[in-house]
Amino acid sequence: MSIKIGIYGYGNLGRGVENAVRQNEDLELAAVFTRRDPSSLKINTPGVPVYHADKAVELKDEIDVMIICGGSATDLPEQTPALAKLFNVVDSFDTHAKIPEHFKNVDACAKESGKVAVISVGWDPGMFSVNRLYGGAILPDGKDYTFWGRGVSQGHSDAIRRIDGVADAKQYTIPVDEALEAVRGGTNPELTTRQKHIRECFVVAKEGADKAKIEEEIKTMPNYFADYDTTVHFISQQELNENHSSIPHGGFVIRCGKTGANLENTHIIEYSLKLDSNPEFTSSVLVAFARAAARLNSEGASGCKTVLDIPPAYISPKSGEELRKELL
Amino acid sequence: MSIKIGIYGYGNLGRGVENAVRQNEDLELAAVFTRRDPSSLKINTPGVPVYHADKAVELKDEIDVMIICGGSATDLPEQTPALAKLFNVVDSFDTHAKIPEHFKNVDACAKESGKVAVISVGWDPGMFSVNRLYGGAILPDGKDYTFWGRGVSQGHSDAIRRIDGVADAKQYTIPVDEALEAVRGGTNPELTTRQKHIRECFVVAKEGADKAKIEEEIKTMPNYFADYDTTVHFISQQELNENHSSIPHGGFVIRCGKTGANLENTHIIEYSLKLDSNPEFTSSVLVAFARAAARLNSEGASGCKTVLDIPPAYISPKSGEELRKELL
Repeated sequence: MSIKIGIYGYGNLGRGVENAVRQNEDLELAAVFTRRDPSSLKINTPGVPVYHADKAVELKDEIDVMIICGGSATDLPEQTPALAKLFNVVDSFDTHAKIPEHFKNVDACAKESGKVAVISVGWDPGMFSVNRLYGGAILPDGKDYTFWGRGVSQGHSDAIRRIDGVADAKQYTIPVDEALEAVRGGTNPELTTRQKHIRECFVVAKEGADKAKIEEEIKTMPNYFADYDTTVHFISQQELNENHSSIPHGGFVIRCGKTGANLENTHIIEYSLKLDSNPEFTSSVLVAFARAAARLNSEGASGCKTVLDIPPAYISPKSGEELRKELL
Repeated sequence: MSIKIGIYGYGNLGRGVENAVRQNEDLELAAVFTRRDPSSLKINTPGVPVYHADKAVELKDEIDVMIICGGSATDLPEQTPALAKLFNVVDSFDTHAKIPEHFKNVDACAKESGKVAVISVGWDPGMFSVNRLYGGAILPDGKDYTFWGRGVSQGHSDAIRRIDGVADAKQYTIPVDEALEAVRGGTNPELTTRQKHIRECFVVAKEGADKAKIEEEIKTMPNYFADYDTTVHFISQQELNENHSSIPHGGFVIRCGKTGANLENTHIIEYSLKLDSNPEFTSSVLVAFARAAARLNSEGASGCKTVLDIPPAYISPKSGEELRKELL
């Protein structure tokens, strides 16, 4: 019997979940929920109903796991606790500093309903977190480093678009090769923000806008750009559309640690991602952990979990026997 | 209260475990067990008793987790089931094809005693297996590749040493750069054994031995070398001792998979290890999973587990709160 998946919110992430569900034979898309007018939504999967978000409560018994595809700023802090009262849920809440608070809120609701909620699923938080944990536990005398990119940062692109005279923009975060090599060298270097990443901006200026002023405003913007070496390229809207419409991302988690009687041996653990589509990869992680949520709940578990709490085997459709035979 | 660790077998792996235990404040070395004369053994940790292996049964209540540091060929198939009748245990059983059988034997014993046994812990099997699992579950439409090296293969070095006229030898397994790059390119290439790895041998010939014949015997040895491009260097024993006495190893697990409505997007997940000391890294993984064995058993679990069955958080000394705050 397949696991019935609901998608709550149909943006980039929701569409990614829809595609990912189709790649997994043991999962079945049961319904899509939207806050827009459901009749205005054309989804990719024939025969699957689209409901207004308010109808979710009525579908309580038709959905095994609801994958919540809202944004972290305002949607998920409301939606995940509310939906955890009705469903097993998975979300991609990624405001790192607020994860403990979100966990607490969701945990209370999921314990009350007897459901399982898996929060902060994706790659960072998510697979990067898992790798920071494994690395630190295996090599306690060490240090870890996270680099992001090359990839599009939505937040930084938005910040540029808010500048007066800017019509459109894309910002790429790029790890500095020399910093990556220094870390891989095993010397545990101390690296400043500026030494780790550079920022490259592709900006479409409005007709008659002062480009020098825009460039200056970008490069001196506190938090977003001032601490980085930033380059700004002005291009046409057509060029932006043609060459910068995809959403690649990725990054590196590197643990460098020492072992031995006198800590004389150095070990480097490196995990990296190179993603053509940031939202589609995140969706694929969400879908795999939806499988775990269903299985955990069917075994009687309830409450809030993160990727750190879930046995790897639970995200796979294969049995323990198959996994031991094929992968171990 | 710290977790009391026993070490069963005091070779390279046992000494690595001893050092790794010292790196973890929540763990304490309680005893070392050896099949040799205990009085002949000088261990690194002052004040820790050394017992004959036969005495283990008497220490049943003094040890929380026994880390079994025997070899996979003949030691572990006997030792792990036997010791799982008395203790929570961890081993590094690495004969891939026999893992299902070993699991079954150990599981029966651990269920009978109510203890937890974690088998096949290390990096391959071990962390590489975990990464194959995550990669395959997240990107089901894809393919994974494992490369080993650059590192010393003990089995291949031994095979050379058995050749007539050979006094000593070290063999390095080296991944082929072009193959690694092809995989990272995302084209899911089909690679032959010869295309993936090369083998480099450093051989000390006995006085008067026929070097040409030795080289020929190595290069044509079935299974070990015949399917690879192999280079053979004859060197002096002194040079072997000076330049080839360490035991580095490492490797790569790469998953390349597709997502999207038409599988138009490619993603590369890469996990790699670069290890100065293969046994010390394996020991560090064993020790982290010993912590998990103790915790699982204290929660009432019993039976055989592998790294695939254990929540990442269980191998860390940090609490769930700390992990969510610091790593997620």
